[in-house]
Amino acid sequence: MPEGIEKLVELFVKFPGVGPRQARRFVYYLLNQRPQFIDLLIARLNAVRSEINQCKECYRFFPNKVDAVVCEVCRDQNLGHDTLIIVEKDVDFDALRKANLIQGRYFILGGLIPILEKNPERLVKINPLLEKVENFSTKGLQEVIFALSANPQGDHTVEILSEKLSPLRQKHDFKISTLGRGLSTGTELEYSDLDTLKSALENRK
Amino acid sequence: MPEGIEKLVELFVKFPGVGPRQARRFVYYLLNQRPQFIDLLIARLNAVRSEINQCKECYRFFPNKVDAVVCEVCRDQNLGHDTLIIVEKDVDFDALRKANLIQGRYFILGGLIPILEKNPERLVKINPLLEKVENFSTKGLQEVIFALSANPQGDHTVEILSEKLSPLRQKHDFKISTLGRGLSTGTELEYSDLDTLKSALENRK
Amino acid sequence: MPEGIEKLVELFVKFPGVGPRQARRFVYYLLNQRPQFIDLLIARLNAVRSEINQCKECYRFFPNKVDAVVCEVCRDQNLGHDTLIIVEKDVDFDALRKANLIQGRYFILGGLIPILEKNPERLVKINPLLEKVENFSTKGLQEVIFALSANPQGDHTVEILSEKLSPLRQKHDFKISTLGRGLSTGTELEYSDLDTLKSALENRK
Amino acid sequence: MPEGIEKLVELFVKFPGVGPRQARRFVYYLLNQRPQFIDLLIARLNAVRSEINQCKECYRFFPNKVDAVVCEVCRDQNLGHDTLIIVEKDVDFDALRKANLIQGRYFILGGLIPILEKNPERLVKINPLLEKVENFSTKGLQEVIFALSANPQGDHTVEILSEKLSPLRQKHDFKISTLGRGLSTGTELEYSDLDTLKSALENRK
Repeated sequence: MPEGIEKLVELFVKFPGVGPRQARRFVYYLLNQRPQFIDLLIARLNAVRSEINQCKECYRFFPNKVDAVVCEVCRDQNLGHDTLIIVEKDVDFDALRKANLIQGRYFILGGLIPILEKNPERLVKINPLLEKVENFSTKGLQEVIFALSANPQGDHTVEILSEKLSPLRQKHDFKISTLGRGLSTGTELEYSDLDTLKSALENRK
Repeated sequence: MPEGIEKLVELFVKFPGVGPRQARRFVYYLLNQRPQFIDLLIARLNAVRSEINQCKECYRFFPNKVDAVVCEVCRDQNLGHDTLIIVEKDVDFDALRKANLIQGRYFILGGLIPILEKNPERLVKINPLLEKVENFSTKGLQEVIFALSANPQGDHTVEILSEKLSPLRQKHDFKISTLGRGLSTGTELEYSDLDTLKSALENRK
Repeated sequence: MPEGIEKLVELFVKFPGVGPRQARRFVYYLLNQRPQFIDLLIARLNAVRSEINQCKECYRFFPNKVDAVVCEVCRDQNLGHDTLIIVEKDVDFDALRKANLIQGRYFILGGLIPILEKNPERLVKINPLLEKVENFSTKGLQEVIFALSANPQGDHTVEILSEKLSPLRQKHDFKISTLGRGLSTGTELEYSDLDTLKSALENRK
Repeated sequence: MPEGIEKLVELFVKFPGVGPRQARRFVYYLLNQRPQFIDLLIARLNAVRSEINQCKECYRFFPNKVDAVVCEVCRDQNLGHDTLIIVEKDVDFDALRKANLIQGRYFILGGLIPILEKNPERLVKINPLLEKVENFSTKGLQEVIFALSANPQGDHTVEILSEKLSPLRQKHDFKISTLGRGLSTGTELEYSDLDTLKSALENRK
């Protein structure tokens, strides 16, 4: 395989969920398109690189058209400061915003904390979160919602962060909540674990 | 393939989740065991056939050691009649009993009602359920819990049966509930549907 | 779960490819059929147990209608003794006979020899095979065909058995062959291993 | 989702085997890397775009370091012109060259011909192939090897192209061959189709 191709395969292999075979197919796919396709890909990569900023407030990526450092959601005066929704990543933010089920401001952690992790700060924006909650506390914060995945890492992240938020909560008296557990769409009773059955019975209505 | 083998394959193919290839492997597996294995299988089939009865009250299968027509759960005087838990099948009953999360009597529907089914009575014990609820109503019934799977058939079954139970409920004033929805263990936020997100936010705590 | 059911589940779990969940579903499936279904299953199990014999010559299972100890293929006078096809199990025999691609007598090994196995006789009928080949040698044997799967166990079995047959071959001068390797239907070149590519190039035509 | 991100997702979705969800994860992955990563990706895309040429002789992609229009394999004087190996795509060429099982020159078709395709020229370089074979015929061509996948499209491609090559073959008397069929590594006898069994028996050795 020519070296130039190999060098590009090396980068594609780092993309999430891409193995060496698919990475190679990516490169040959690109070579088989008209050269304009690679030009367009480069142009859009450049665009994302220069036009997309990470919001200094919520850490999500947003299009920076006015040289702003804060995204349009964080700039929205109507949102108030009573609800702060903590999510793992941008796509979770997208999903919740699109669902339009709750009003509130968001904070993107950037990851979850694995169970035996010694330096959670490495993976998750802990101090920026504490600062944000402290700041919101003085502006009427009522509830911090952890909208994380229902898996061991998600649970562990809630546990660690709740503990870190505990002094602030005692001082400012806001609520910390997590998403409700139960049967999710498609779940069959026969294959449900004990925790899910328990929540499903407790939350019955 | 010898006819005797083929005839046995024909029956195994009817078993849930078994294709012709696996059915054939079953038969050759049996032939390759000592003959005592087939004898034992026949003995245990005979035992199940003669010792397991279907309870006349809840319709689950139970070991009939005392020539009883009613299972030990339905005979249990301590259970009262305030909670009736409706499940689809025996394994769901087993799962809930083993979880030991709730006290109550059970009723096994025997199936779920597909969405366009014209004769639901064919698949689900509707009239026996109505009789049972009527009977329990006079003995202090407080709540009927539909503990069914969180899929379209389960939802449709709840809908149809709730409607059928509606006159009884108006007369006797008991509650009808379904299992709580939300994130089930292992669910990732990114892949959740709108209904699940909605329930998860509503049931947050 | 009632004990009688559990006891039957225990047996079904031993069936090839069946886990505890499916085994349980088998039992409840049987309970939900009319009792005649279990009767029929028992009858056919009895029939297989009493009517199917293992052939004393080729070790396959065959319907014993005339109190014979030798199957109809081994009794067939027209087949001669020039070709002996060695297969792992009955379904392989069925596949080759049904394909009707070659005339010959068969021998069912009953298994393959795992690579580090110390007692191959435990799993594979080695001595009966040697006796059979010796016997055929005196009747005009031309070729022994190993029709085994193209995996490490199959290759290892061919290796061990070829060595055991080697003295007989030197004395009686018959051919030992294995099935041809190459691209099998559906194989994509991109995903082929070196051995397959090599055979495919060598056997090109 | 910001428009710049969406525009990039749109391109990634066109990559082979990539769905919208993975495409989105690609973009957020890029955003979460240091900006240098996107710079490097752009640089390597540019390199592939400018340094990799498609060979005018065999149509594979090769690194063009000397402003050549013909790849190093096609320039190799030692290869002669007796063997022409026809493959579907570059990775098949890579696999065969790496296996080092046969000496010869190559031709990359660029695709296979689907069974009901009306304009095969659209997908496969038919006329360049005919010209190449004609040219090689005058230089001592002995054999054209179709090294294509063993699936219906591969078989159909061989059929169509063999017919097109037929007049040249009659005139110049070279051989046309295809890769040998048989059991490929890992194939179990029980799951083999009739064609594979047939070839495996015919090619036994």
